[in-house]
Order: sequence, then structure tokens, then C-alpha cells
Amino acid sequence: MAKNELRNIKLTIEYDGTDFFGWQVQPGCRTVQGEIEGAVEKLTGEFRRVFASGRTDAGVHALGQTAHFHTTSSIPGNRFAMALNAFLPDDVVILSSKAVPLSFHARKSAKGKHYRYVIYNRRVSSPLRRRQMHCVYEKLDILKMRKAAELFVGKKNFASFASNARRKDDPVRSVTDVRVTKKGPVVTIDVMGRSFLYKMVRAISGTLVEIGRGKELDIVSIFRAQRRVSAGPNLPACGLYLVRVIY
Amino acid sequence: MAKNELRNIKLTIEYDGTDFFGWQVQPGCRTVQGEIEGAVEKLTGEFRRVFASGRTDAGVHALGQTAHFHTTSSIPGNRFAMALNAFLPDDVVILSSKAVPLSFHARKSAKGKHYRYVIYNRRVSSPLRRRQMHCVYEKLDILKMRKAAELFVGKKNFASFASNARRKDDPVRSVTDVRVTKKGPVVTIDVMGRSFLYKMVRAISGTLVEIGRGKELDIVSIFRAQRRVSAGPNLPACGLYLVRVIY
Repeated sequence: MAKNELRNIKLTIEYDGTDFFGWQVQPGCRTVQGEIEGAVEKLTGEFRRVFASGRTDAGVHALGQTAHFHTTSSIPGNRFAMALNAFLPDDVVILSSKAVPLSFHARKSAKGKHYRYVIYNRRVSSPLRRRQMHCVYEKLDILKMRKAAELFVGKKNFASFASNARRKDDPVRSVTDVRVTKKGPVVTIDVMGRSFLYKMVRAISGTLVEIGRGKELDIVSIFRAQRRVSAGPNLPACGLYLVRVIY
Repeated sequence: MAKNELRNIKLTIEYDGTDFFGWQVQPGCRTVQGEIEGAVEKLTGEFRRVFASGRTDAGVHALGQTAHFHTTSSIPGNRFAMALNAFLPDDVVILSSKAVPLSFHARKSAKGKHYRYVIYNRRVSSPLRRRQMHCVYEKLDILKMRKAAELFVGKKNFASFASNARRKDDPVRSVTDVRVTKKGPVVTIDVMGRSFLYKMVRAISGTLVEIGRGKELDIVSIFRAQRRVSAGPNLPACGLYLVRVIY
């Protein structure tokens, strides 16, 4: 391979979102994108924009965020992961890297995403889970949550579950699966879909938790209202994970 | 109950050890004991020493540490948990409390302890587990670890697995069970026994990890040597949990 040939590198990334102001570079803030762009520059000597599958908000975690960047470096594609990790802080790690066609775009090429919201359901908070799960003190009714979860699946207008939706954004989204599981005190809400509106997974999870708590919410009516206020609250960022991006 | 009657309160405590200098009060250091004694004083107006089942070192976690303290407060025994939690920081919580006979002593009355060492076994470190698991990069041979684990069970001289052992300490300890389990990338070593020497669980775990990595260590010879240097290294505090104290 010629040294100056432009290549496209795809990264798969895990991060603990707790101490980041989210993915996207912002002046004066510690961001995941900022850390990775800094590592790329230190490794290759080139400043390159690193594009993710989507921004994650402050405090949101990733088990498998993806991103791409262009480079003229001759480092083999699969070696970027370990090499970049040498320049990254403890709370972000590149799990794998590979060379992909220049046509690949982490966001535009994505076919779907898997998000997970994790709840610790116990009468007292848990110091050991506080950075990575949202604690709910009232006992959740899992069967009710499961039944309601089915009503989110399909191509629907999710305006009632989007925060700060810009008028021009199409509020119609396709959710392919919402699964509620419980293992001991840990309740997990897995949400799969093509793409999501701003804070949509946290609004869906917040609505399911209200139902689990025993609140009588009619999901069909909430969808019909197309008003954010009709649904449950957004749950905090600490329990949210971007698990996987599907291409 | 008369208001000034002296009572004994038993606490069961969870904490994230990461940001503590261990259990025991030390001048100028943030300790779990210091936080709880501060909370007791704020709640009852009395300064009382809070005695644990045993000290945990800096960085070691607890899922079920126990402690006791005396008080003349008239707060019902089971109410102390929630009341103290109002005065405690996020990384320590009282799971439960109850009034016990004055003869109960968290350390002296203990019949046994359950410790757990948790390892994340993957080629790259995990930002999301880094505070609570120790990462081992080489693939561990679980069957070899299990076979070796059996050799720790029984009443034995554990001098080879004790750090800074004082001459006067009896190095003979009874270990009742050592269990190695694996679930995905998480390898767990559960150690049960009557009582333990200083850093003994971390030395047992470190020896088992060396064996899992493929190092040929003869546990019988290590016991016979009665020298700390013959065994594997102490694993770091971040993976160690005091799970339960048995009375």
C-alpha cells in the first residue's frame, strides 16, 4: 500500500460516559470525540475529524459505538485499536478497528441501532451500580412493562417521546423491538430500531417505568397526543448504553 | 423503651471502595468508617465508634459489610438504615439495620466471611468495568483454575498467602470453599472461610490467575514453602468484594 493513499478506518468503541460531556467536541469540555481525535493526531501526526454513528449525550455509555476517520497513515487497519488505546484515557477504549471502503460512513451507512437502559430495582440505592444503572425504589411490575413495550414496536410517530424536537425533523421512526428483562434486582430495557429521535430511548424507558410503578398510562393515547408531556419522564443518562450499531 | 437505655445497632453496608482509603479512620483520609461515624453523630448527636467485621483496604468494595455501634438514641433499630443514608455520600449505603443484644460484636461474633474477586477476561480493558473488575488480557484456563482452587480448601498454614504478616499472627486459617465461575468474559473467584490473613484473598486469586494463564505452579509446594514470594502476586483492590459476613 502506498503511504499516502487515503484510507477509511472504522472503529468500535466502548466508553464510560460518566465523566464525559457526551460524544461531540465542545470547546472547553471533555468529550469522547475530542479524546479520540487527539489520539489519532498523536498517533498519525494528522488532525482528522472522527465521525460517530451518532452523538451520545453527556453521561451516556457505549458498549459498541462506531466511528470512522480518514487517514494517509500506513498503519494496518486492525492495528489502529491497540495503537490508539496507548493514547486514550481509562474511560474510553477502541475495541477493534479495520480498514473499510471510503464509501463507508459511520452514521449514514448504519442500518440500525441497539440501545439498552439498565435499572437497579431495590428499596435502597446501590453505591456499586450508581454510575451505571438508574435506581428505582418501587417494585416494578415486569409483566405490565412487557405488555406495554410491545406497543412501541412498528413505524410510528414518536413525537410524544422526543425532546426538543426541531420542527423539520420527521418524528416517524421504526422501532423493531423493545424487550424488558429482569434478573435479580436488574431490569433491562433493550430497544432496537433504525434510528431514534433526541432522548427517545430515555423517554420510552421512563414511560415503561411509570407503567411498572403502577401508573395507568395508555400508550396508544400517548402516541396519538404527539406531545412530549403526555408520556413519562426521560430517565437519567447513567443507565443508558449504545450497545451496537448494525451495518 | 427508655430514652437513655444503651442499645447496640447492627448495620449491613454496601460501598464502592474506589474513592475511599479503606474502612478504618485515618487522619486526613476519606474512609467508610469516618463517613458512617459522621452520619451517626449527625443523626443522634452522639459520637460513637462504629466497629466493622473487619477492615477493608483502600479500593476494596463491600456488598455486605457489617458493623455495630452503641447508642442511647430512641430511633427504632430498623429505621437507622434509612435515617443514616440521608447523611451518607453516594458511594456508601446502609442496606439494613437492626437492634441486637449488647453482646453482639461485628468482628468477634462473626462465624465466617464470603469474599469475591471479579476478573474481566478480555484482550482489551473495559472502561465500563474498570472500577469494579480487574482486567486480565490473556485467556484464562478455567478448568485448571478450578482444579487448583480445591487445594486451598481446609485448615492450612497460609503464610505463603499473607502480606506483612506479623510474627505473632497465627498463619493457620480455615478456608471452607473456593469456587471459580465464568460467565462470558467475567471470571469470579468466591472464597469462603472463618477468617483471613492480610491480603490473603488477593494472593489466592493472584495465584489462581497465574495458573489460569498457564504458569506451572504447584500449590502444595507453595503452601509448604511458607514464604509469600513463592505464591502468585496480590491482585489489585478494584476487583475485591466483601460479599457477606456470617454470624
